[in-house]
Amino acid sequence: MTAPFGFTLKAVDGNARRGEIVTPRGVVRTPAFMPVGTAATVKAMFPEDVAATGADIILANTYHLMLRPGAERVAKLGGLHALMHWAGPILTDSGGFQVMSLAKLRRITEEAVTFQSHIDGATVALSPERSIEVQCLLGADIQMVLDECTPFPATADEAKASLELSQRWAERSKAAFGAIAKPGQALFGIVQGSTYPDLREQSARGLMQIGFDGYAVGGLAVGEGHDTMLEMVEIVNAILPQDRPRYLMGVGTPLDILEAVARGIDMFDCVMPTRSGRHCQAFTWQGRLNLRNACYAEDLTPLDPESSCPAARYSRAYLHHLVKSGEVLGAMLLSYANVQFYQEMMARARDAIAQGTYRGFVEDMRLRYARSADTVED
Amino acid sequence: MTAPFGFTLKAVDGNARRGEIVTPRGVVRTPAFMPVGTAATVKAMFPEDVAATGADIILANTYHLMLRPGAERVAKLGGLHALMHWAGPILTDSGGFQVMSLAKLRRITEEAVTFQSHIDGATVALSPERSIEVQCLLGADIQMVLDECTPFPATADEAKASLELSQRWAERSKAAFGAIAKPGQALFGIVQGSTYPDLREQSARGLMQIGFDGYAVGGLAVGEGHDTMLEMVEIVNAILPQDRPRYLMGVGTPLDILEAVARGIDMFDCVMPTRSGRHCQAFTWQGRLNLRNACYAEDLTPLDPESSCPAARYSRAYLHHLVKSGEVLGAMLLSYANVQFYQEMMARARDAIAQGTYRGFVEDMRLRYARSADTVED
Repeated sequence: MTAPFGFTLKAVDGNARRGEIVTPRGVVRTPAFMPVGTAATVKAMFPEDVAATGADIILANTYHLMLRPGAERVAKLGGLHALMHWAGPILTDSGGFQVMSLAKLRRITEEAVTFQSHIDGATVALSPERSIEVQCLLGADIQMVLDECTPFPATADEAKASLELSQRWAERSKAAFGAIAKPGQALFGIVQGSTYPDLREQSARGLMQIGFDGYAVGGLAVGEGHDTMLEMVEIVNAILPQDRPRYLMGVGTPLDILEAVARGIDMFDCVMPTRSGRHCQAFTWQGRLNLRNACYAEDLTPLDPESSCPAARYSRAYLHHLVKSGEVLGAMLLSYANVQFYQEMMARARDAIAQGTYRGFVEDMRLRYARSADTVED
Repeated sequence: MTAPFGFTLKAVDGNARRGEIVTPRGVVRTPAFMPVGTAATVKAMFPEDVAATGADIILANTYHLMLRPGAERVAKLGGLHALMHWAGPILTDSGGFQVMSLAKLRRITEEAVTFQSHIDGATVALSPERSIEVQCLLGADIQMVLDECTPFPATADEAKASLELSQRWAERSKAAFGAIAKPGQALFGIVQGSTYPDLREQSARGLMQIGFDGYAVGGLAVGEGHDTMLEMVEIVNAILPQDRPRYLMGVGTPLDILEAVARGIDMFDCVMPTRSGRHCQAFTWQGRLNLRNACYAEDLTPLDPESSCPAARYSRAYLHHLVKSGEVLGAMLLSYANVQFYQEMMARARDAIAQGTYRGFVEDMRLRYARSADTVED
């Protein structure tokens, strides 16, 4: 029998938690940042370099993969891990978020969301059961329930109706998962409720009644702002069980992540390090840099002297030249260095929690990032 | 004192030659294929992977680098090798070819070619002396004389006038090089003369009178066709000195290269492996593959089971998915595998020459490539 899914708390510092998620495909050290491998590739990176950054787990997008190459085809090809040369754990989202943001002609009913593929216009239905089926065909180690990511802003009535639909879908997801998942695979619920504390509480308690291997906080980082986001995280984390991992979906900037860790979040994913890398932006221990900036044209400083990433050894002058010239190598080096920075940041966060110095670490990072003259594109 | 530039013949098989070019930055095993690093990057490849393919030397483009980031700036940044993390020898072209193919409002006089930059429209003059100055600022180990790449087709009168201008520019290039080059740097002449045997002979003999460290055959692979190209190569190589390396510029397909090696060429460069890699095309030991082809959608065969390239271990199905999805990783993997294929092909050619089995090797390659159902885009 394969090792079961599990989560162990190793240390706490205030509300910040250091732990380990155990999966049959390996251990995930938390707090963890999951690089996003949308279409079965962490964009512009070799998978061995993703592993070399220290990433224990990556995320892949159900919506993209069900449309291309198709979930049944991925299964036929041996599953997502073999296909993309990633041996560690993979978390897949439910597909719901991208249906809302990418697909055309969406129609939500109690049964499912129906949409037109943004690739070929085909009509596709995604129900809670189909989402789980797709995630199992992909072979995902951690799967997410299908939910409706409540749009922001939403009235209290809209948010309540939306979370209650998500709640019913969560029940159906759990039932479907129980029927077809393999031992060691895990299913996470997703707390919705927009920016309404009582609705967040209703959602969290409802999901806990169903019971999941972990709990995500969804519907944030959608325009509500840093402070409101953290307020919702605090409210939800005060309710969620201590012995399950907590995942803040789609977040975020270094300081967003570190403040959410301070409030008890264990897992994160975001396209920011890779997307920024393709848009000339670097995250470094000296703050954010925009490599298009002319000030780097003759700057022989390595991209990040404090990083251990091979890509961070290249001079800022060379990277400036590459991005000005539109060279692919610029995106390759910046994506690699950015993902490595995020992983180094998470490693330092874990160490600081273990040593009881987490708050000082966050304040140091705040200073480093306050010094940044450059801005990051989203 | 640094090691001088030199060329040693190690073995011959018919007219095919195996040898070594010695430079202060390392030995180039010939026949050699030089990956093209146009703008100080072999496109979509990490420099350590370029080295890992077995490439001893790369080519960089004077035209691109003089415009961006600028030759004086490259020198200020420590030279091209340091800037782009390439420790081995670099050959630079003179810039003349790209002036003809990329720049606007060209005007050629006896003194120089004047043009508008394709990047910012600035008016730039490139004389034989300035070309050498730029190549020395870049720090190129092997430099090329500025010539006029005679357009194809050309009348005999046009071709003669053109090669005679190139001949006078070659003299000026040699003088300029003698004044500023460092010990161990080398300068190659370029034989022109279009498709006229007598003009090819006139050009070759004229250059030999000036005396160069090596000789290139230019103005080919511009539309004259495979057979005429090889005919010109034969004519020129019958004249050129045995004790100097011979370089066929801008060539080419695997069979173009192997047939030119059979006629005594030692060095090649071409964008084909990298450009094809960005356009879904693979060169493999099983022939050419177009990874966009639907026949690969569920093909779990590694890209090239006979290759030792890490990138060639990925399945054709995965590469098909990547290129269909427009993912950067597709270009990264195919560029890497293609450059490695070219290097493995040159290594096998060198071995075959040493063993006296070169003709059989070429015939084997002809069969492998005749089997290819797919076509390669240029």
